[in-house]
Amino acid sequence: MKFSEPFSFEILAVKGKARAGVFHTPHGSILTPVFAPVGTQATVKSLTPAQIKEAGASLILSNTYHLYLRPGDELIASLGGLHEFMAWPGPILTDSGGFQVFSLAQMRKIDKDGVSFKSHIDGSPQRLTPEKSIAIQENLGADIIMAFDECAEPYDRQYSESAMERTHLWAERCINVKTRQDQALFGIVQGGIFPDLRERSAQYLSSLNLPGYAIGGLSVGETKTEMRETINLVTDILPKDKPRYLMGVGTPADILTGVENGIDIFDCVLPTRLARHHAAMTTTGRLNLMNASFARDGQPIDQSCSCYTCRTFSRAYLRHLITAREMLAASLLSIHNIHTLIQTITSLREDILENGKTK
Amino acid sequence: MKFSEPFSFEILAVKGKARAGVFHTPHGSILTPVFAPVGTQATVKSLTPAQIKEAGASLILSNTYHLYLRPGDELIASLGGLHEFMAWPGPILTDSGGFQVFSLAQMRKIDKDGVSFKSHIDGSPQRLTPEKSIAIQENLGADIIMAFDECAEPYDRQYSESAMERTHLWAERCINVKTRQDQALFGIVQGGIFPDLRERSAQYLSSLNLPGYAIGGLSVGETKTEMRETINLVTDILPKDKPRYLMGVGTPADILTGVENGIDIFDCVLPTRLARHHAAMTTTGRLNLMNASFARDGQPIDQSCSCYTCRTFSRAYLRHLITAREMLAASLLSIHNIHTLIQTITSLREDILENGKTK
Repeated sequence: MKFSEPFSFEILAVKGKARAGVFHTPHGSILTPVFAPVGTQATVKSLTPAQIKEAGASLILSNTYHLYLRPGDELIASLGGLHEFMAWPGPILTDSGGFQVFSLAQMRKIDKDGVSFKSHIDGSPQRLTPEKSIAIQENLGADIIMAFDECAEPYDRQYSESAMERTHLWAERCINVKTRQDQALFGIVQGGIFPDLRERSAQYLSSLNLPGYAIGGLSVGETKTEMRETINLVTDILPKDKPRYLMGVGTPADILTGVENGIDIFDCVLPTRLARHHAAMTTTGRLNLMNASFARDGQPIDQSCSCYTCRTFSRAYLRHLITAREMLAASLLSIHNIHTLIQTITSLREDILENGKTK
Repeated sequence: MKFSEPFSFEILAVKGKARAGVFHTPHGSILTPVFAPVGTQATVKSLTPAQIKEAGASLILSNTYHLYLRPGDELIASLGGLHEFMAWPGPILTDSGGFQVFSLAQMRKIDKDGVSFKSHIDGSPQRLTPEKSIAIQENLGADIIMAFDECAEPYDRQYSESAMERTHLWAERCINVKTRQDQALFGIVQGGIFPDLRERSAQYLSSLNLPGYAIGGLSVGETKTEMRETINLVTDILPKDKPRYLMGVGTPADILTGVENGIDIFDCVLPTRLARHHAAMTTTGRLNLMNASFARDGQPIDQSCSCYTCRTFSRAYLRHLITAREMLAASLLSIHNIHTLIQTITSLREDILENGKTK
């Protein structure tokens, strides 16, 4: 493959399988392990880039499927690419569109070559192939881009195997058509909950010598034990000197499991989605701020949190905004939830740096 | 009346009837003429206090009627008052609740003593009197509070006269029950579009020697000429050394009319309401950013605007947020619209200071 010059990954310390490192990208360095908030439609819902940055984010994720359908990747390219379009000057990761085609689109038909489907927005016929996914992602211009993959039902062995095999062929096709040197293409390990498939997938993708690897098809219905064992098995096989990304995972417990098993990058809609449903993530669990018990509560969401929301507002005020259906509630809770997850992962990083073995 | 020590109003320059001044309040000094964004439910919709400040606001308005019904003024008092509750450290103005009772509440019955009505939220029976309005406003703790008034149909002479007379009696009752020294109570001139009623009202209220005066009952259906003539007539009568507040007025043209006729303070929901309906205010008129012509437009809303939105985002991005129904659109347009109105009024102030007569 064409090797991507502007990228490098340094591991600074390890503790067991956990790693603390720095991933250098054209739009800045990412301290790993890292949590990336999701900006599906080129916006982390309800937040300005200034607020996203203040909440502690370095890397954000955006969705190829959504941006391809609206406003269109060519439009974004004509306006200078996604960084410029959404005014996020730091690193961006785009997914391949594969997962959304399988979870959101209607009337999808998979063949060897790609996937035909109807847009969830207007029902228009659409088609994604590995080549098209890369072309879109090159138009968007994220720092980290993903190989087009198929995410199967995790317990269906036959489907998991054929989807995995397609994912491997598609990864090679993605490598072959990729042209930009300022984007790192990550491969995605599939194989459902089946250890032998996951092993084959991790080995095969490792042989392609990509600048990074993701584990797909987790957090989609499997048990916590199956998730942990799959991560552990896959990270034992993937090259140690490349960043590893656990896709779509974002509860504090799952992040801990991931970090302990050698994952470097996480993303999830959880903090912003919970925020829009009035839930605050704290180090001791979730609070539903619509609860009447918070009506006169002058404390911040979390006494130990240093985010703008906790420094500035009481639970009573947040509950008032929620009951009055004020938009500001979603913004303030999103700031808090993103900050909390990022603080959680930053603490894990500091523990590895302080108590692990320096490389 | 009990005179309010912490308040003073300096006029720095005049140009014709227009005045540039400084109104000192317990929570800071307001450079006048000033435009106050509206935070009806203790939030300027979709914006954090940090964003409101960055947009240029010094004074904000909040609505007594809404806060009395939800979350309740006693709750806000128990949490340290409105400044603390909504985390706005600068000056706040609360209205009296009168206008909202007459425009929003159901089943209202007016008597000499006050108004009975049903809450627009849950239909519960409620009652506001001059005494109750002041008690609520003292619990909220704004710097500028308003006498309880009745806003009549502007063209109904009989109703306008009786409402005006009630407003006068109620103003005296407000003065009599007011206890806090750190709040300036403004009286409200009523009288519809009838010059003799407006004259009587302005003269009567002037005799009460209040620290400031408002003109109510405008921008409610009268013509532009009637508005201008009413303002001109009333400001000729009101004491020159007290700030004058034109309630609920906020188009750039009406602000210009107001300033030219000696108004110092304005408030309006217009900038934030237009923002939620995809309209951007510019110095050359309104843009509806949902319009397809903006789809590929890489320019900011207004080339000459220095707000965060115009410094950071293109029209194409804003249109994308709007078509994708993203909440961020309302925040970014609110920032721009508030900044634009405040810049408009700041330019008027600078013109008075530069080209008017220094006092």
